[in-house]
Amino acid sequence: MEYKVDYEDVQFTLFDFLNAGQLSDLPRFQGQGVDLYQSVLDESLKFSKQEVAPLNEKGDRVGVKIVDGRVQMPEGFGDVLKKFGENGFMAIDLNSEYNGMGLPTLINTAVSEFVMGACASFAFFHLLTRGDCNMLQSFASEDQKQTYLTRMTTGEWTGTMCLTEPQAGSAVGDITTTAKKNADGSYSIQGSKIFITCGDHDLSSNIIHLVLARVEGDLAGTKGISLFIVPAKRLNADGTPGMDNDVKLVSVEHKMGIKASPTCLLEFGDKGKCQGFLVGKQADGMKYMFQLMNEARLAVGQQGVALSGAAYEHALQYAKERTQGGKTLIIQYPDVRRMLMTQKAYVEALRCLIFESALFVDLGWHHPDAHVREEYESYLGLMTPVCKAFGSDMGFRVTELAIQTYGGYGFIQDYPAEQYMRDLKIASLYEGTNGIQAMDLIGRKFLKNTGQNLKKYLTRITGQLKQVEEQTELKPLVAKIVQAIGRFGAAAQAVGQQAADEARVGLMATPFLRAFGDIICAQLLVRRAAVALKQLGQSATPERKRFLQGKVEVAKFYVEQLLPETDLNIARILSQDVSALADVL
Amino acid sequence: MEYKVDYEDVQFTLFDFLNAGQLSDLPRFQGQGVDLYQSVLDESLKFSKQEVAPLNEKGDRVGVKIVDGRVQMPEGFGDVLKKFGENGFMAIDLNSEYNGMGLPTLINTAVSEFVMGACASFAFFHLLTRGDCNMLQSFASEDQKQTYLTRMTTGEWTGTMCLTEPQAGSAVGDITTTAKKNADGSYSIQGSKIFITCGDHDLSSNIIHLVLARVEGDLAGTKGISLFIVPAKRLNADGTPGMDNDVKLVSVEHKMGIKASPTCLLEFGDKGKCQGFLVGKQADGMKYMFQLMNEARLAVGQQGVALSGAAYEHALQYAKERTQGGKTLIIQYPDVRRMLMTQKAYVEALRCLIFESALFVDLGWHHPDAHVREEYESYLGLMTPVCKAFGSDMGFRVTELAIQTYGGYGFIQDYPAEQYMRDLKIASLYEGTNGIQAMDLIGRKFLKNTGQNLKKYLTRITGQLKQVEEQTELKPLVAKIVQAIGRFGAAAQAVGQQAADEARVGLMATPFLRAFGDIICAQLLVRRAAVALKQLGQSATPERKRFLQGKVEVAKFYVEQLLPETDLNIARILSQDVSALADVL
Repeated sequence: MEYKVDYEDVQFTLFDFLNAGQLSDLPRFQGQGVDLYQSVLDESLKFSKQEVAPLNEKGDRVGVKIVDGRVQMPEGFGDVLKKFGENGFMAIDLNSEYNGMGLPTLINTAVSEFVMGACASFAFFHLLTRGDCNMLQSFASEDQKQTYLTRMTTGEWTGTMCLTEPQAGSAVGDITTTAKKNADGSYSIQGSKIFITCGDHDLSSNIIHLVLARVEGDLAGTKGISLFIVPAKRLNADGTPGMDNDVKLVSVEHKMGIKASPTCLLEFGDKGKCQGFLVGKQADGMKYMFQLMNEARLAVGQQGVALSGAAYEHALQYAKERTQGGKTLIIQYPDVRRMLMTQKAYVEALRCLIFESALFVDLGWHHPDAHVREEYESYLGLMTPVCKAFGSDMGFRVTELAIQTYGGYGFIQDYPAEQYMRDLKIASLYEGTNGIQAMDLIGRKFLKNTGQNLKKYLTRITGQLKQVEEQTELKPLVAKIVQAIGRFGAAAQAVGQQAADEARVGLMATPFLRAFGDIICAQLLVRRAAVALKQLGQSATPERKRFLQGKVEVAKFYVEQLLPETDLNIARILSQDVSALADVL
Repeated sequence: MEYKVDYEDVQFTLFDFLNAGQLSDLPRFQGQGVDLYQSVLDESLKFSKQEVAPLNEKGDRVGVKIVDGRVQMPEGFGDVLKKFGENGFMAIDLNSEYNGMGLPTLINTAVSEFVMGACASFAFFHLLTRGDCNMLQSFASEDQKQTYLTRMTTGEWTGTMCLTEPQAGSAVGDITTTAKKNADGSYSIQGSKIFITCGDHDLSSNIIHLVLARVEGDLAGTKGISLFIVPAKRLNADGTPGMDNDVKLVSVEHKMGIKASPTCLLEFGDKGKCQGFLVGKQADGMKYMFQLMNEARLAVGQQGVALSGAAYEHALQYAKERTQGGKTLIIQYPDVRRMLMTQKAYVEALRCLIFESALFVDLGWHHPDAHVREEYESYLGLMTPVCKAFGSDMGFRVTELAIQTYGGYGFIQDYPAEQYMRDLKIASLYEGTNGIQAMDLIGRKFLKNTGQNLKKYLTRITGQLKQVEEQTELKPLVAKIVQAIGRFGAAAQAVGQQAADEARVGLMATPFLRAFGDIICAQLLVRRAAVALKQLGQSATPERKRFLQGKVEVAKFYVEQLLPETDLNIARILSQDVSALADVL
């Protein structure tokens, strides 16, 4: 199955719209620049198409199985993972002293879209290992970094994140895995963890589990949780993997999609011989894990873009080649064009959303001015649940339309559409369900902050929109978004006034996130269209002009056809209806 | 996998709301009555739960395969099909002289929900065979009826409908299968047919294909198409199946879902020895096939209700049993309740829609007054594309929410949610894609009719709503729907004024169908709530009161939370935006 992506759109969004080149002005990225970023993108896209993509269909059909108590991966994954690490793709935005490339997270994010779009099951090895690396880089001791991090950045060892337990799905504070301090300073870990992505496999010589557990005597709830490094194999004196560390593979899940991604039930310390090593300070585990969780939430949102983007490109090509009765190409039918334009609009808007959020990561971490860092971090806090939930839900809607574009063939496994949909469904569920994201946005990010960050953000985008209003063609679009922002702001105030009514707030959470998501996406596309319009005025080839005009049309389409969903969701927020709370279910 | 359905809701909708008992006032159904209908429902539900449901998960996991050139079905399907036929379920609404029960189509429709909900792959044998039977009953010669129909109504032989060809997906007029008259009055059939559901299998001793083909010299397009009976095996003199009739199984499709339903590519007359028998008049085939297609479209809409209804019931049970961290049941979370109520609202509304449409079938076919028949037929014409497209799309949305209700477990094959979604996806694609349904509604059913039928229907439901307005609790709901009808009517007029602009009409088609669907569903639930409110005033057990209150709350929820989508779609209809037509895709 060929991997298809609109690379021109990726580059335009990164360099022309978001001005990724600005990052090399930051001390951290000095001496870098667009040429370097461009070459990493070129290479990673080539690798994703040539090496990763061929794994995708095979991985889905073969899946994973347990052989002699270990997960056996489909053929080919191991070789590709090795080359992936050798090329440095595992650690694009990590520090060079730990074998990273030291590039912006924005560039890593663009590369991640290619890898994820080419084969989701493979991409999790990248996503989790890189996330673990970044967490270890932030919080582990230098000794731990030298021992584990430097071997994970190269892809020699892979990582996991072990949070969920059978009785504690979304409620991490309820975990019961224990850690008991040993005389040598290590800890004995005991407990079960479920839904552990890449929890066992035969691709690397060791697997480094990052495990949340409670040290005996520590507080109940999230405040008593510590983070441990738990290697699948203990290390010999020379640092090579040695004897098993009592991490037992109990089972793998049989899933709707991402079938080559081993989702494992692991038993730590079944024989009382599982050794873990505390990361950072005792009982600070949730703080550390939040860094990884936030990154993972952006990555899950990106899964929405990556898979729906690939699904759209395939559907588009099909629509341009398939005729009805040997006469009319199906792309000529207005209803098919409506479906394709909807796909294009969501894919490009979500790509803008994810990339701009990644830019906020870079600016929030590496800008020299602490106030600027703080500002971008506050935006990122708002964007994270939107990326995750809106990205996965709208991405799923795109895969639905991609299938629909094929007609009956969309249901057949000879075409890639149905696998993209199945592989994407998980995105609304893991890393905190989308309902939890909505509660995070309306609760932690909005109400607890008494609306200050949201207000600041809405003011920011209103100002940015005003700057592009001078372009006549965009003026009516800007006006519509600014009006929508006004109505959303009023609805947010109404939410604020009912903050004490938990049940009402709970009912409003999802509509609140959806309304916000549509506004963010609409303004991104319109601001990007302004850049396209400027370039359209300059000399350009006919193909480039058509491409640039596409940026303008897709902005119009979003504002006219999709943004009106904001009002639907505002109506839900403002409705006094509480029938869903009635005792009739 | 247990089959779950809200049987109380089915009965309430049939008997209390739609007054199914009224049908025994019609000459055709004289002497029947609620008791008889009730007992058929009881028996068929028991059969669906005990016999059909156990096939479902196994069918999905095992699927179909080709062994020695024939489709091998998963174990168990044959026995159940035999018992199904013996019980008379294959021909509930067919004439008794052909082994039918002679009951209303409404009762057959309720039974069909159970069979489809219990196992979609099995249900197609029912759906297609019964549809074929009804078509043969309407149009075949008495001799053909005695030969074929009487053996299909018992389930001894099963049927197919062979329309689609590789080069002619949705464009039936482009078919190239030919029929050449033989000296004995039979025809030699030659051509390929794809996507033939139940096209080959080992469950019955013969398979009766109903094939569209063009007799040499007949007109191109749909006006030159004839309908033929083509048995897989020729009949011996005594009517038993004999030698192969040159219907070659080329391949079966590997699909996203309904994996135990053999979707076949068939080659008719590969060796020039495929014998077919003309049904009715030459070149009238499309007229006959339309009867079957319209019935199939209602059945596909019902697939939406049946699978989403079962998915919802499982999700509901899970939400009532699953706790977060051993404390809070997840059904106590407002966002989960919002998801469950959305599922309940769509499932019950779609059930009302399908059942009322089936009632229109009975009244449109069997009412003694020709004017009344004509009136109900016109309503049915409007309802058919809505049942098919709105039923499958909203049903799919329900399965999405059912998966979401489970959280991560929704993605795992240990729970039934993901299979319901996969099995349902086909419904938006086959029997004419949902885009084609939307064009049928806005084009054939609305514009070609200069809006007369739609106007009559909207007047009818407005009048029906006014009748329930006296119930204070419903008054604000009625007002909102009547306003929505007004806005939709105005939007329809706007469509009418642009009827000549095919591209614009094409862009409006899907929003038009969606807006209409929401209005139909909302008024059905509110009118049904009026019946529940009346019964609430009478004596009832606490459980029954809770049930009846549920009918009221679900009507409120639909009007307040879902009906506002009408305005979103009206905005799309009225928008002057044509960005989807721009040459940028």
